[in-house]
Formats: sequence, C-alpha cells, structure tokens
Amino acid sequence: MTMLAPDNKTAVLAELRAGLGSKVNTDDGVRSARGHDRSHLPWEAPMAVVHCTSTGDVSEALAICSRHGVAAVPIAAGTGLEGGANSTADSICLDLSGMDKILRIGSADLDATVQAGVMKSALNAALAGHGLTFPVGPGVDASVGGMASTGASGTTAVRYGTMKENVLGLTVVLADGTIIKTGGRSRKSAAGYDLTHLFVGAEGTLGVLTEVTLRVYGIPEAASVAICSFPTLESCTAVVQSTLESGVPISRVELLDDVTVDAVNRYSGLGLPVMSTLIFEFEGSATNIADQGEAVRKLALVNGGTGWDYASDPDQISRIWRARHDALPSYTALVPGSSTWSTDVCVPISRLAECITLTKADTDREGVLAPIVGHVGDGNFHLAFVLPPGDDGVLVKAGAINDRLVERALSMGGTCTGEHGIGLGKTASLVKEHASAIPVMLAIKSALDPQGILNPGKVLAG
Amino acid sequence: MTMLAPDNKTAVLAELRAGLGSKVNTDDGVRSARGHDRSHLPWEAPMAVVHCTSTGDVSEALAICSRHGVAAVPIAAGTGLEGGANSTADSICLDLSGMDKILRIGSADLDATVQAGVMKSALNAALAGHGLTFPVGPGVDASVGGMASTGASGTTAVRYGTMKENVLGLTVVLADGTIIKTGGRSRKSAAGYDLTHLFVGAEGTLGVLTEVTLRVYGIPEAASVAICSFPTLESCTAVVQSTLESGVPISRVELLDDVTVDAVNRYSGLGLPVMSTLIFEFEGSATNIADQGEAVRKLALVNGGTGWDYASDPDQISRIWRARHDALPSYTALVPGSSTWSTDVCVPISRLAECITLTKADTDREGVLAPIVGHVGDGNFHLAFVLPPGDDGVLVKAGAINDRLVERALSMGGTCTGEHGIGLGKTASLVKEHASAIPVMLAIKSALDPQGILNPGKVLAG
Repeated sequence: MTMLAPDNKTAVLAELRAGLGSKVNTDDGVRSARGHDRSHLPWEAPMAVVHCTSTGDVSEALAICSRHGVAAVPIAAGTGLEGGANSTADSICLDLSGMDKILRIGSADLDATVQAGVMKSALNAALAGHGLTFPVGPGVDASVGGMASTGASGTTAVRYGTMKENVLGLTVVLADGTIIKTGGRSRKSAAGYDLTHLFVGAEGTLGVLTEVTLRVYGIPEAASVAICSFPTLESCTAVVQSTLESGVPISRVELLDDVTVDAVNRYSGLGLPVMSTLIFEFEGSATNIADQGEAVRKLALVNGGTGWDYASDPDQISRIWRARHDALPSYTALVPGSSTWSTDVCVPISRLAECITLTKADTDREGVLAPIVGHVGDGNFHLAFVLPPGDDGVLVKAGAINDRLVERALSMGGTCTGEHGIGLGKTASLVKEHASAIPVMLAIKSALDPQGILNPGKVLAG
Repeated sequence: MTMLAPDNKTAVLAELRAGLGSKVNTDDGVRSARGHDRSHLPWEAPMAVVHCTSTGDVSEALAICSRHGVAAVPIAAGTGLEGGANSTADSICLDLSGMDKILRIGSADLDATVQAGVMKSALNAALAGHGLTFPVGPGVDASVGGMASTGASGTTAVRYGTMKENVLGLTVVLADGTIIKTGGRSRKSAAGYDLTHLFVGAEGTLGVLTEVTLRVYGIPEAASVAICSFPTLESCTAVVQSTLESGVPISRVELLDDVTVDAVNRYSGLGLPVMSTLIFEFEGSATNIADQGEAVRKLALVNGGTGWDYASDPDQISRIWRARHDALPSYTALVPGSSTWSTDVCVPISRLAECITLTKADTDREGVLAPIVGHVGDGNFHLAFVLPPGDDGVLVKAGAINDRLVERALSMGGTCTGEHGIGLGKTASLVKEHASAIPVMLAIKSALDPQGILNPGKVLAG
C-alpha cells in the first residue's frame, strides 16, 4: 500500500457518502473506537467507518475502495487478540456490528443463517426458543462473522469442533465488490473447491464474510461437571488421553495451572488445592452423564487425581465453573492496574505437558507473571501475560517468551495459534510454521485481491 | 490442452525414463488398466504410467510434465465414480498405488500419517493392533489419498464427519514439482489459509496429495445395530431428525428404499417387509449402546416404525448389516449381465423424503430400475441405475434422470454431490450449483496450475 494522496481520500469519501449516505462516519471518537481490537498491537484511526447493515452495503463500499485502491478493514465485535481488525489511517473500516439479523433458524435441519455481526449470545438466545444451541466459540462474547474469520473455537471444540467444522456456507464480498455464495445448507458436499474453508480463518484478507450458515445442535437433556486436582501436568494429560481414546464424549475439559488456581482462590475465595486442575463437562441424558462422569472418575483416580468433585445441580455446576470463568479477572486482580496479553499455541497432546512445563520454567526464569489455562482435549493452551501499568520491560520480556513459546510449539509438531489467529501479531510465526506453503497462500491472495486492499498486513505481512 | 507433438512426447518419455527408470511403464495393458476409474465416463490410455513410490517420484515426474506442458493424472485405487482419475491419450498417469506405507501411528495423539496409496483396509488392519480405527470412507475399499482428494465420506459421517473433518495435514506436490506441507499434527490451528481443506476435495487439480495425516479413533468398547420398517419415507426422516436433535450419538443410519429391500430379499433370502427401512448403528460402552438403542426405539415407534430388531451379538449384527452390504450385488442380480451407475446428491434433511419421492416417481415414469440407499443422517442418498448390457437407451434415460435429480437437489438447497465428487461427470452441475463462486475457483486453479496440466477437465471443465 502506498500512502493515499489527499485528493484520492476526498474522492473516496465523497463516493462513499454518495452511495451510503449517513452510514459513512468520520467522527473522531467512532474512528478510534472502531480502529482496533483488544490486543496491544499497533493501530490508527481509519479515515472513515462505514456502518454496514447489508451485504449490499459491503459490496458498494468495497467496489468504491477497489476503484481507488484504498484498503478496507472489516470489524464487528472487535474482540480479537492478534490485531486482525486493526486499522491504518489510510483505510476504510467496514463496521459489520450492525449486521445483526438472524436470517433463518432451521429447526428441522439443525442449521441457522445469520448476518456476520450477530453476537454469539444473541444467536443462542434466539436458538433457545427452538430447543437449540450453538456451542462453539470463545469465552468472551464475539460476533459469528469474527469467529468464522479467525477460525475460532473455545472450550467445546473437543466435542463440537471449531468454526471450521461448523460453518456450512457463506456469503462473501470479494475485493471488487462481487458477491459470492460458498457451500450451502446440505450437511456435506463434494462439489468443487472448498471455498468455505478457505474464507473461514482468512481473517478478511480474501473477502469479507457477510452471512454465515452454521450447524446448530439440540440443547442436551442434562449436563454435569467435575473438578479434580492432579500431582503433575503429565497426569492431567494422561487422563485426558485415556478419556479421548475410550470415546467418552466429554464436551469440555479445561486445564488450570497452579498459578491460575492460586489466583482464583485469592479472587473468589475458592480454597482449591494449588495444583494442576482439570474441569470436565458431560452432556447427554441424565443416566448417560452419570456414566460418563463415573468412567472419567476412574481414569482420574488411576492417574493420581484427588478431590474429585462432581456436580449435576445448576448451583453446584456454577460454583465449579467459577474457577475457570474468574481466571482472567483474577489475573489482573493480582497486579493493580494491570492488563493481560493472551497468546495461544496448540501441540499434539502427547507433548502438551512438556510444552507447558518448559513454558512455565521460561516465565519463572524471566520473572514474568503468566498463568496458563488450556483446552487440553485439543492440546491448546493460553499463556496470559499480566502486564503491570507502564512497565515496558515486561512487555519486551513477554514478547521474547512468546517467540520462544511459538518455536517450542513448532518443534513439537504444533501450531503457532490454535484459535486466536495470525492477525498482525503472528505473521512472522506463520512464516516459520508454513514456510513451504507461504508461496501458495501468497498466490491465492494475489489471485483474489490483486491490489492488496483487503485487510492489508494481516496474516501475510505486506 | 493442445495435442502433443510427437517429438514432445518422445522427449517427455525420455526424461521420465532418465529420472525414474523402470517406474515408467508404457505397457498397453497397464496403460489401459490405470487409465480409468469405475464410472461409465470416457477415458483413453495415457501415454505412460509412472509407478510412484515416494513424494520425490511424484515431484520429479511433475517437474518434467511441467517443463513440457504435459498433463498429469493421479490415480491410486481407481474406485472413483465420476471419472476423476480418467486419463487422456496425451497425459502421464501418476500411479500412487505403490505409495502404500503407513508412516506413523500416533496412539497417544489419536493420529496417523500414511502415504496416499494406503488402502483404508490396510490402515485399519495396522490401527487395530493399537486399539484404534479410522471409521471414515465409502463401502468399497479405497485409498486414503483418493478419499481425501474427493472429500469422501460414507456411512459413518453422521458421527465422525467426512474426510474434510478428518484430514489434519497433507504433503502436496504442486504443478511444477514443488513439495509443500499443509496443516500439521495439532488438533486445531488458526494459522493462515486453510490449504488442507483447499486440497481435500480438489480431485488432484490443484496439486497431488502424497501423504495424509488423519485423526483416528479408539475402537469402541461395544457396538450394536437395529433395523426397523416404516410406512413412509417421511416417517424415516422424522425419526432421524428427532434422533439427531436429541443428541443420541448414532454412528450410522442407513436408509434402504422398498426397491432395495425387495432386491436384497431376492438375493439373500432375508424376508424383510418390502417397505422403507432404516438400519441404525450404536457405539459406546455396553450400557451406553443399550440406552442409545432404547432411545431410538421409542422415537421409531412414535413415528410408525414396525418390526424393530435390535442386535448386539456379532452374528446377529452381521445378519442385519447384510441387507445393506448386499445392496449393490443384489441390484445387478436383478438383470443378468447388468452394471450399475451410482450417482449421489445431498439435501437438507427436511427435504430428503420429498426429494427421494419425486426421484422415485421420475424413475418409475421412465421405466428405469434405480434403487436408492441413503446416508440419511446427512441427507445424502445414492441412486443406482441398473444398466442392462448393450441398452444405450437406458443410459440416455438415466442421464436425463440424473440431470433432473441434480436440479431437484439444488432447488431444495442441496448439493449436486455429497461424496462422489465432480470428476468429469458433474462439471456442468457444479456450474449450476456454484455459479457465483466458479470465477473464484478458476482464479485459484489458474494461480496454482497456470498451464492447466493437473488432471485437466476435472472439476472445472476446460
């Protein structure tokens, strides 16, 4: 991208206003508010924010940007963690948060079609009336389009998969404003190139997702949870490996390291043993969840588990989950005024304990507070750097620890990100991970976005 | 593709022989045997067959083909049904059936890496020693590379998904011989464009798959099956919809139409009621499969099911599955000397009964024998035209019925193929289904294979 000439900027804004009227917003506060996600990565206020409410709006805006070679950066909830929605001063921000319509709920087919800006919470509120749920997604509320764009997942991937397994079809606006449909409503298809999966996880660099068709699920008849402490990280992964191989269909298994347990004990007064801890969730019929729980309890005991605490009563379930839900606020409560930087990697589960152990040794050595929680059924874990206010030294150390974490994960056959995406923050990591495949990614980017106007600098560094 | 000049042909063969020695085979019988799949679609013997045993062989052969602009057509088991592996006289056939090494079984991580020519049966024989299984794939034994290339699935997709959900990573040789790796061994990744899914289902038109890393599964502790007759197709789909929404994790649910039941009764003396029939399979612990069976039995009764027959004893399980396994031979036994042409579509399950009913009316009206079996949990079904020997009139009628079947499926929000792929047979159907997305597919094809030498004419008609 070259710098935009002032005349060009004036022309672009004039055309946008002519086509999209009051949806074009150049208010300073709005441009700043919509110019970035939740990461610590660099951003600038875009030259304008276009409040899109339809696929047609996105198409019109991109056609104008394309004619002028101006960058366009899509954003919806802005909950990303790697700068994937961060703007530059020369770009137009496409704000999809107003694309909040649930277009269709297919109870008979267990699917739903929504606009990209629909929040996961809103979707689930609408689905609940049909006895349905969409279980995929991060702990924070996020937009369906954003989740699809980053290939997001979360705690339930061990049972339900990630967005990759749950997006059936898309409406996508290409760089020049052309609208295409990918996939469809059938549960499977072998018809042509799988463009749905190409756009899912492309973080808006190949096209802008405007409508998403999802698999949805019946709300389980019953659910229960169990929490259990373990002497080592190895014993945690061993019980999870045995559980997965046995085929017990656990819907969640979350790891809390000793630092996290200590933090939530302080924050929420839980009094849990300060040890590596697993929380399991079971879903199914009332008898089935009891069977699942009993099967896993036996495996936990064999692997040195202690303090097994099983709950099927809603209040007790909430009490157990609190240790996980309070993790993030408990971290920042440890250091007044601090913020967190959450990074993620994913490794084969056989290497997970070793990867976490080496990473904890690294953070201890550097004196950086960085608790760990993990979606251990997938081999995915998050390291949350606690950044004291105004201490750039910790940020530098955290950056170096993050680099070593990625190297470690890659050396173990893992990936530099299990679910947060590449964004701005991990473009160098992507090159390390997929050196042989980068030319293919660049060829596809070039074929679909020859001017490089779609979310430039993200995924593939410019 | 232009016709190949004789000098060019001589030069290509000389270079292939110089590089690959006795792996280059120009024997007439071999060229004919490896020039086609199991479809009725056109093919010619290729100018040579290269018996590849390594990724390096494929790379060397493609580098030579690329330098001369000569087409390359990969094949392994040759069990395809849409001509996806059919050669032309100007092409080089890359025979991957000798790439039969199982490279790694990761018991601890529930994954395995195999060469593309490994047969599903050989993989499962090797996995069994580790207590593992790979449940995905068609009824016929097929190669892992072929299954990945067509995005295959089969009877277990309702529980385990298709090849799309079960390929974690690939080694791919590009048109110019470059070797790349996609994906990896972690259970999930949000790192860059999802090239794995792009190559899976591309039928060798974007690159040749040489190694595949798969998710594998623990062998279930127990399995049981049940068969049940229903008064209408609607009642069959209703019970399946209720089952899916309830979350009972059935591993298979197969529909046999009345024509199929009649055929297997004659062929195998089964004495089943000549009605729409479902066969369910349940997997899990011994108590769990009984619970699943009981839950589905209740739903079947509510929906008019009769003759519920449940079996957990291996002999009785085999007896019940026989109705499904004998379907294809029972069809050809109806007409001496006949062959079958199996086509497939997939629709939202809410439209499945209507789609099958209209299709049966069409075959009845045309007087064409075409029984139906379906993977009804996915909304996917197969119409098997029974083609009497030497009767081209039936082939013409079948072609027209197939065209109308595709139109019908598309009008219901379905796809022109759930699992057989596009190959040569459904290129026009693909254009109808994905009109808006075809330019994107062509742009990707052009970016990755600018000379159009990879399996030309397949998926995207030349």
